Amino acid sequence: MHAYRSHTCAALNATHVGQEIRLSGWVHRVRDHGGVLFIDLRDHYGITQVLADSDSPAFADLEKVRAEYVIRVDGRVKARDAALVNPKIPTGEIEVYVTAMEVLGPAEELPMPVFGEVDYPEETRLTYRFLDLRREKLHRNMMLRSNVVRSIRNRMWDQGFTEFQTPIITASSPEGARDFLVPSRLHPGKFYALPQAPQQFKQLIQVAGFDRYFQIAPCFRDEDPRADRSPTDFYQLDLEMSFVTQEDVFAAVQPVIQGIFEEFGGGRRVDADWPLIAYKDALKWYGSDKPDLRNPIRMQEVSEHFRGSGFAIFAKLLENEGTEIRAIPAPTGGSRKFCDRMNAFAQQQGLPGMGYIFWRKAEDGTMEAAGPLAKNIGPERTEAIRQQLELGEGDAAFFLGGKPEVFEAVAGRARNEIGRELKLTEEGCFKFAWIVDFPMFEKDDEGKIDFSHNPFSMPQGGMEALSGDPLKVHAWQYDLACNGYELISGGIRNHKPEIMYRAFEIAGYPNSEVDKRFGGMVKAFKYGAPPHGGCAAGIDRIVMLLADEANIREVIMFPMNQRAEDLLMGAPSEPLNEQLRELRLRVVPKD
Amino acid sequence: MHAYRSHTCAALNATHVGQEIRLSGWVHRVRDHGGVLFIDLRDHYGITQVLADSDSPAFADLEKVRAEYVIRVDGRVKARDAALVNPKIPTGEIEVYVTAMEVLGPAEELPMPVFGEVDYPEETRLTYRFLDLRREKLHRNMMLRSNVVRSIRNRMWDQGFTEFQTPIITASSPEGARDFLVPSRLHPGKFYALPQAPQQFKQLIQVAGFDRYFQIAPCFRDEDPRADRSPTDFYQLDLEMSFVTQEDVFAAVQPVIQGIFEEFGGGRRVDADWPLIAYKDALKWYGSDKPDLRNPIRMQEVSEHFRGSGFAIFAKLLENEGTEIRAIPAPTGGSRKFCDRMNAFAQQQGLPGMGYIFWRKAEDGTMEAAGPLAKNIGPERTEAIRQQLELGEGDAAFFLGGKPEVFEAVAGRARNEIGRELKLTEEGCFKFAWIVDFPMFEKDDEGKIDFSHNPFSMPQGGMEALSGDPLKVHAWQYDLACNGYELISGGIRNHKPEIMYRAFEIAGYPNSEVDKRFGGMVKAFKYGAPPHGGCAAGIDRIVMLLADEANIREVIMFPMNQRAEDLLMGAPSEPLNEQLRELRLRVVPKD
Repeated sequence: MHAYRSHTCAALNATHVGQEIRLSGWVHRVRDHGGVLFIDLRDHYGITQVLADSDSPAFADLEKVRAEYVIRVDGRVKARDAALVNPKIPTGEIEVYVTAMEVLGPAEELPMPVFGEVDYPEETRLTYRFLDLRREKLHRNMMLRSNVVRSIRNRMWDQGFTEFQTPIITASSPEGARDFLVPSRLHPGKFYALPQAPQQFKQLIQVAGFDRYFQIAPCFRDEDPRADRSPTDFYQLDLEMSFVTQEDVFAAVQPVIQGIFEEFGGGRRVDADWPLIAYKDALKWYGSDKPDLRNPIRMQEVSEHFRGSGFAIFAKLLENEGTEIRAIPAPTGGSRKFCDRMNAFAQQQGLPGMGYIFWRKAEDGTMEAAGPLAKNIGPERTEAIRQQLELGEGDAAFFLGGKPEVFEAVAGRARNEIGRELKLTEEGCFKFAWIVDFPMFEKDDEGKIDFSHNPFSMPQGGMEALSGDPLKVHAWQYDLACNGYELISGGIRNHKPEIMYRAFEIAGYPNSEVDKRFGGMVKAFKYGAPPHGGCAAGIDRIVMLLADEANIREVIMFPMNQRAEDLLMGAPSEPLNEQLRELRLRVVPKD
Repeated sequence: MHAYRSHTCAALNATHVGQEIRLSGWVHRVRDHGGVLFIDLRDHYGITQVLADSDSPAFADLEKVRAEYVIRVDGRVKARDAALVNPKIPTGEIEVYVTAMEVLGPAEELPMPVFGEVDYPEETRLTYRFLDLRREKLHRNMMLRSNVVRSIRNRMWDQGFTEFQTPIITASSPEGARDFLVPSRLHPGKFYALPQAPQQFKQLIQVAGFDRYFQIAPCFRDEDPRADRSPTDFYQLDLEMSFVTQEDVFAAVQPVIQGIFEEFGGGRRVDADWPLIAYKDALKWYGSDKPDLRNPIRMQEVSEHFRGSGFAIFAKLLENEGTEIRAIPAPTGGSRKFCDRMNAFAQQQGLPGMGYIFWRKAEDGTMEAAGPLAKNIGPERTEAIRQQLELGEGDAAFFLGGKPEVFEAVAGRARNEIGRELKLTEEGCFKFAWIVDFPMFEKDDEGKIDFSHNPFSMPQGGMEALSGDPLKVHAWQYDLACNGYELISGGIRNHKPEIMYRAFEIAGYPNSEVDKRFGGMVKAFKYGAPPHGGCAAGIDRIVMLLADEANIREVIMFPMNQRAEDLLMGAPSEPLNEQLRELRLRVVPKD
């Protein structure tokens, strides 16, 4: 017989009754039923109930084991009494009467239990991650993550993509976040950087003639930690394609992502209709460039109804350039109580409040509009608003005014809140949208023109577009939004050096700066570059959505804590003097 | 029609004749046949011949394109004349008459050609890697590598393994090589390290209860560069299993590796018989712990025949303790010319020479032994040697004497040379062997006992074995040798803290040092650790063997040069002062 096991802890069933078998696993739970000892023995695959009474030669030894001991037991498979069969587990028909046992790995008293899934402080969980990972939920999340990544890979290959690994110890490639640096021993004083993303390499792969690249790529950003972001390394599904337009990228990506959500969504509905929404419409309609489309509310501009109206605040506001009034329709929200609560929400968010109108049944049985705003603008305008918003009795609408860039984010959050409160937001489904037509440039606070997103994207209209008003130029750039999160970001790239130089020039960077920062890639574009584009999808985010987890540390095997420390392995730590000497580095004392 | 292509450059054949199509790709080669312009248009998938004459409106534009321009052509598919059909390529039946063209990406004058596979200096090739990668051989190598990795993954999943990603920014884990360090910005003065291998993490994964882990894992070692080693990062197939013995690991690995070599070996025979060879036998028989078994020569100890013989050098040598005489049989090597050449080879390798005997037909038609050695020891001993080595007329044997550890490596190289010279070494096949029973400890030059290989391996015989002579203890540790290379290294791990502490104590490390260096793992072992073991296989090495390449840079997309520099991206480079300030680091000037 094998040294450790003839079967796993999920393998035995009624067909094995009477057989002599051997199992190994962790002591999940011990119960002493007066002279009979029951142990749930657990391994990666499942749980088997084993038992011994005082007639068993193993009884005395078994009495000594505690939770999380690793033991090997030999015994005979017995059918359980019909009343004791557990249909929830594959081994629920049987139990094993133990005749011999061996402790393979004893366990000291546990700092946190594995059985029971009790909540423990994150510091404890991360310090004893190897115990935490034994718990059912984390074990399941890790298996989910692994299966998701595998399925993504297979689906990408099925779409004709090839996976290539790009360098991890490489050059600094400034892309918005901070680089992690790696000092060079062979070239003291010089540093490598860990890639924030394989952006330049994947573009070089296209220039090198590989048509459809992908990679489950480790990415490194030295960012200040957040609950939904790993402070050090994270993984992206990174892909790039040659000779493609935006639609080709969408057509390649949708089957992969939709397929993943269908396969691992646990029965939640996956919408196959992925609308294209222009960036500016997303902001106008949803107050967000990653709208949650499970919420049916779409905001509308209603400025005209307030211009010159009796509601002085809005009427006056509209005299300033660039202002507008926007309405958030709230079907079924037509009660003063609800409207006041939402008004209070807006105040919490730092606004003076949200005006509202709601429509109710009047005492005479007809419908009437209520709320201070309705009084101020009078019945005609109120009715015109109701008709534009297609609302009726029992519904409400909220109003925000000013410069959209100032109130849009709050409007978006109010929309979320209203959708949730009124249970308008559909549960148990995934809804996607491509956000397109991002502006290429924006004005920063000092009025300077800068790239608004990715400087590597091709401007729509090419070189010609760059001779007009930069703020009117759209980029071939897109995001995929899912349930209020950004899952993917990408673009059709700028593969023409002269257009790239011009775009950077508009953003205030001279050619020499482009050559310095992105020299490898720009040089490559001068030797026959194909049109190309692609995107990157956050693996952690996808798994979080599928596992319904809000904390990234629930879907990563060995995460850092929020201070970017590995509590289990003790990182970061003080280097040896010898290491610093070899690198010709000195740590500057804190002043 | 699609903006760039209706077909790839490998898609068109006789069935498309007459169709209007669109292709995009690189100008591989231009030939001007007096008024007719032929262009081989290349993409990732293949090559299509396109042409235009002066009747074509595209002719003038086509005349201007040079090698490696990226162009789009529209045209009509024509059948080639029967005499001009090229059966070697899928598009060889047709050509495309071009009616319109567009330059998508022009190319400056090339620093190295793509067409023709001319040899270029490595510096040029790495500086213009995007051009180098367009060449057929490199393109093929990259696709091979990607397909090999994919197949490994699928085969591992089929064997019940699950892939998990382990941290890349983590703690220093001293495993023999130098760590790459990563300074922490949030904890100035402290450093992360990039993992030399995920050794501790994969063991923690077992302790966490995941039964069969694998990963195509990036590994980082700051080593001085060599032709067959990447100076920065490289990839391993890393795997680990719980509740296993050495045989279980072998049984899991062989189908994966053998399958890969069968799938991608290009018809080379893959031996299914993987013998187990003890480490000391490998050294004795082959002079190497990674023997090339395609070479049938097996060395033998022949000390007895020389003890007290007339060959004073060997006879005297044997009076010293720990010495022996070893023979390298050389079937078909029985000529003085060959024996002298091998003797010269040994001298080049720093030995005084190799004694030899060869057997030839004497003038009277019988067999006679020749060479100075034979004369010295006389016919009886010579004949006894011949019989032991099972040699005959036309064969030879070479002899080395002394302490085996001194001459074994040269003996191994002589064996290789003899096998190659005499064409005894089989070509076109892969032969594997598991090297087992490595010594746990060895004496270093100063007579101090240290680990001879991996300190994490379980000593055979466990705690009991550690109370005897440490130099006699074998470890549960193994390598897989293939054609003279080490492909895999692994072991059954020491999962018992008390045995680990004892083993390190023997090697001179106090418990506190073990806790300091491997604290996370040792702590984990105290809370219920399963017996476990595994191994790691070098991906680069596997692909090099399959692609028949001797230089690792031929199988890596963007390799560093031998000075650990990325010539394309310009790494390593000087950091910004601001970066150093954030990290609280100062570069110490060279003295």
